[in-house]
Amino acid sequence: MSQTFSGLFVVAQTPFTDDGALDLESVDTLCDFYIKHGAAGLTVLGVAGEAAKLSMEESLATVRRYVARAQGKPVIAGVSNPSVAQLAALTKDVVEAGAYGVMIAPATGLKTEEDIFSYFNAVFSRIGDVPTVLQDFPFSTGVWLSVPTIARLVERHPQIQAIKEEDIPSAAKITRMRAALPRPVPILTGNNGVFLLQELAHGIEGPMAGFSYPEMLSGVYKLYSAGKVQEAHDLFDTYLPLLNFENQSQWGVAVRKEVLKRRGAIRSATMRSPGPVLTAADLKDIDLLVSRVEKAVAERK
Amino acid sequence: MSQTFSGLFVVAQTPFTDDGALDLESVDTLCDFYIKHGAAGLTVLGVAGEAAKLSMEESLATVRRYVARAQGKPVIAGVSNPSVAQLAALTKDVVEAGAYGVMIAPATGLKTEEDIFSYFNAVFSRIGDVPTVLQDFPFSTGVWLSVPTIARLVERHPQIQAIKEEDIPSAAKITRMRAALPRPVPILTGNNGVFLLQELAHGIEGPMAGFSYPEMLSGVYKLYSAGKVQEAHDLFDTYLPLLNFENQSQWGVAVRKEVLKRRGAIRSATMRSPGPVLTAADLKDIDLLVSRVEKAVAERK
Amino acid sequence: MSQTFSGLFVVAQTPFTDDGALDLESVDTLCDFYIKHGAAGLTVLGVAGEAAKLSMEESLATVRRYVARAQGKPVIAGVSNPSVAQLAALTKDVVEAGAYGVMIAPATGLKTEEDIFSYFNAVFSRIGDVPTVLQDFPFSTGVWLSVPTIARLVERHPQIQAIKEEDIPSAAKITRMRAALPRPVPILTGNNGVFLLQELAHGIEGPMAGFSYPEMLSGVYKLYSAGKVQEAHDLFDTYLPLLNFENQSQWGVAVRKEVLKRRGAIRSATMRSPGPVLTAADLKDIDLLVSRVEKAVAERK
Amino acid sequence: MSQTFSGLFVVAQTPFTDDGALDLESVDTLCDFYIKHGAAGLTVLGVAGEAAKLSMEESLATVRRYVARAQGKPVIAGVSNPSVAQLAALTKDVVEAGAYGVMIAPATGLKTEEDIFSYFNAVFSRIGDVPTVLQDFPFSTGVWLSVPTIARLVERHPQIQAIKEEDIPSAAKITRMRAALPRPVPILTGNNGVFLLQELAHGIEGPMAGFSYPEMLSGVYKLYSAGKVQEAHDLFDTYLPLLNFENQSQWGVAVRKEVLKRRGAIRSATMRSPGPVLTAADLKDIDLLVSRVEKAVAERK
Repeated sequence: MSQTFSGLFVVAQTPFTDDGALDLESVDTLCDFYIKHGAAGLTVLGVAGEAAKLSMEESLATVRRYVARAQGKPVIAGVSNPSVAQLAALTKDVVEAGAYGVMIAPATGLKTEEDIFSYFNAVFSRIGDVPTVLQDFPFSTGVWLSVPTIARLVERHPQIQAIKEEDIPSAAKITRMRAALPRPVPILTGNNGVFLLQELAHGIEGPMAGFSYPEMLSGVYKLYSAGKVQEAHDLFDTYLPLLNFENQSQWGVAVRKEVLKRRGAIRSATMRSPGPVLTAADLKDIDLLVSRVEKAVAERK
Repeated sequence: MSQTFSGLFVVAQTPFTDDGALDLESVDTLCDFYIKHGAAGLTVLGVAGEAAKLSMEESLATVRRYVARAQGKPVIAGVSNPSVAQLAALTKDVVEAGAYGVMIAPATGLKTEEDIFSYFNAVFSRIGDVPTVLQDFPFSTGVWLSVPTIARLVERHPQIQAIKEEDIPSAAKITRMRAALPRPVPILTGNNGVFLLQELAHGIEGPMAGFSYPEMLSGVYKLYSAGKVQEAHDLFDTYLPLLNFENQSQWGVAVRKEVLKRRGAIRSATMRSPGPVLTAADLKDIDLLVSRVEKAVAERK
Repeated sequence: MSQTFSGLFVVAQTPFTDDGALDLESVDTLCDFYIKHGAAGLTVLGVAGEAAKLSMEESLATVRRYVARAQGKPVIAGVSNPSVAQLAALTKDVVEAGAYGVMIAPATGLKTEEDIFSYFNAVFSRIGDVPTVLQDFPFSTGVWLSVPTIARLVERHPQIQAIKEEDIPSAAKITRMRAALPRPVPILTGNNGVFLLQELAHGIEGPMAGFSYPEMLSGVYKLYSAGKVQEAHDLFDTYLPLLNFENQSQWGVAVRKEVLKRRGAIRSATMRSPGPVLTAADLKDIDLLVSRVEKAVAERK
Repeated sequence: MSQTFSGLFVVAQTPFTDDGALDLESVDTLCDFYIKHGAAGLTVLGVAGEAAKLSMEESLATVRRYVARAQGKPVIAGVSNPSVAQLAALTKDVVEAGAYGVMIAPATGLKTEEDIFSYFNAVFSRIGDVPTVLQDFPFSTGVWLSVPTIARLVERHPQIQAIKEEDIPSAAKITRMRAALPRPVPILTGNNGVFLLQELAHGIEGPMAGFSYPEMLSGVYKLYSAGKVQEAHDLFDTYLPLLNFENQSQWGVAVRKEVLKRRGAIRSATMRSPGPVLTAADLKDIDLLVSRVEKAVAERK
């Protein structure tokens, strides 16, 4: 099985200045922050990375900057796009920009298995030999992939080097996938990591998630891999209230950026419009959760 | 404001025997369990109560049994139905069976505000003067109610005595609703209680949620209401890993029933078909989470 | 192959009086009208039959009245229901009321093939040996059935005696289904009959549709079956403008009821609330289309 | 009211060669064909124009070629995009390429009126003073715009110069929109023109639709505008069976391209992958429908 997809892949934010311009200097500090806190790789241009608000030039500039700063760690770029032509063009561009591979979810609107197979035939015949993470995230795409469907995609398309599994409940699906996959393929999980312990128990290679305290995600992975299950749970539970609070789709990303700013990882918590804006009451909720997490972390030491 | 909707309303399970028959004796023990652990009221025949798998006769038998056992506490019955005629008929029946009121969500398929107002005009002109909880749960219904829409519904329909708010993020919407509502209406929240602390901070009257440890939900409400915010968080965090694990829609209900059985509240954890079935690996995950919760609770004492 | 499902099955309206009460006397006149105009069978309690606005008692009364009046022709009753228990109970009741069989669509919310198979296992294990029409109508249910999925359902469940195919484009799917079905199963088509000629060319057993001039649907079927293809088209085209106008989901049903009233088949064009209400401008559109159809029909003679 | 949006706006195909390359020479012949058959303007890069399968460069090359060939007639470019940044960038590019304006539908995923207003605020603050057609096509976008919502958008955003109305039923909504719009705005209609006569009766400025016989759409518009209502219907009805057959979303586009090739307007009927491919049986259906239309047209003369 590929050794590349093992450990924490951080789903990376795209930093903006207060007035909404792309902030490439903050990419540097944020990338350092992720690696310092245990990232084995990075996933950029995802939904949480506000990819849909970037121009093509900005998307590529972001990939290049992350790649340049990532100390050789693999950078995966999200390229999902309703247009197969644009998906293929973007794939070519991000690979030229230094990305290790791409992440692709089935296009919204696919219905039957026949549609799904036809879509991925078109995709994989165009992008060529690029390492690909197949993303199974039905609550976002509206496309449900059954375990047999995933197995057949893996069989047909050698480009699929890893699966990002975000169906719910994830754990049972992971177990069934392990039994059905025709070749060993690493499985990483998302959903912001809220079910990470159970997913580890069912045999995944690591989390692919964003969190303002990535040291928790990497730490849990290491403890669990070392057989320290209770310690892994203890670490996880320390951060869980804040993790949950960030697990509220785009609004949760606003929370995450606010905490990343407070921790000095980025200069501004701004999300590009259209997007959520935190109120004073929301900031107060964050104050309380962060102070409780910080206190609990201090007590652990 | 109505004093009825204040504190914990437990979203109640419907117990079945191992072979799937309605288990009315377990309704008695489960109802006692809920009240012993702090329920101020009960909500029956919800999605988590497997209402969609009951015949009409079973639905009414369940309501009657809960009412008879509830020591005078109010029982709310879910009556959402694609058919307004059946919704109205069921409302009449459950009120005759002793329910205090009903809970109604907008029918799947409603699109514009005009559709929504037309639908509720039809509903409220038929059910008469029955206390109603308006349920705002867009991820289940597919119908998005804006704050101005909710305010207008409350203005037009005096039957609306409470709102169950389950949009995400809930906290900000609660704040905006408080400012917009034309009369004081209690707001209760669901989503299995995972955002309860923030919702309390934004001014709700209590949780309307299911959990295998309802004493946590009632306890958090009481502590928070008494101004003991940090203690409320401490109590909440103790149970959070298990609460999250139960927060996986119908599959999470299977977990909850399993824990309720282990705690002696019901005789069988069976869910009616079609529904999820827990595997040995899933039961192991539950073993671990429950043992950790029990240990943490013991340490608190 | 079953000889029962051959020719025109009229999707029957449910007549109401001007004030919205069930009008059983109009069931008699409407049933006579359908049979006089060539119905080989009837489908009642469908979406176009406003089933979702009937109480259980009204549903059964409607079935009984149609059966009593249908001169021995088979009556199929729609029993689709989010609750398998209620679906099974309703199936039992309608069969006792004299229905020849039932029509079932997959429940909204089913996603993967696994879900679909599990759902129909639950359904068919409960309803017993009742002749069933499997309805494939993805634009209404949101559930997409691929051809292999349909073939497997037919293989597993001998109760499936016919398929109502309403996917778009229907013709190509019919051809692929014919090749894939493991046993001969009649295929009837819906979508209000707008693609009837092409569906006949691809080998169906007849239309299952509603129209205010059912003599067109039965006439086209007979001409086509007799090899008179051009004549079948000529007849079809004569009515097509009005057929299209009725092909606007629930609003189209309001048009159909208005024309049925004008033709003396029912006493009132009322649809139950919540439902569309025709404006004066709409009635004028109908005046024009009906007068053009009537003129064209007269000229054909 | 703007005189620009009056008469037939043809929703233009994007021609490809047999092997799927963009065929700019066929753009010339197709553009000539549209104008010869009565186009007052063109709409390019729509869903039916396979926009989602073009790279950015191809999109702009298509716009430029159409503009260069259109004899000064206005060309509207579809720019709907999940990314507001990309929508704005594409808008800038197509206007520089000579497009008269753009067409924008609300992004899939918008839910409440608040979301919709926020989205269009972001869009219109970025694209500047570009004439815009607001597209209301809920069956494609999943976003339902009520009449009051449309009226408020028109009030807030002077860029909205026309509305493309594709809700069903369209006619009643057009009448209500006319009464609610705060300033005179032309309304054009789509849905492939199948409800064109009723829409004209309710007061629209013309069709914005694709059809392999655009002379029917322009002819109906002219006859109706000249008060020749029955003649307009006669012309419409002559082509209706083929019009309906093309009204089957992407599959219908394959039919349309086949007929356009037969009429000499383009060199190849190819649709880019992933997309529908016509079978021999489908081609036979087309043979029959086209021969009947041609015969009926000949008889009219």
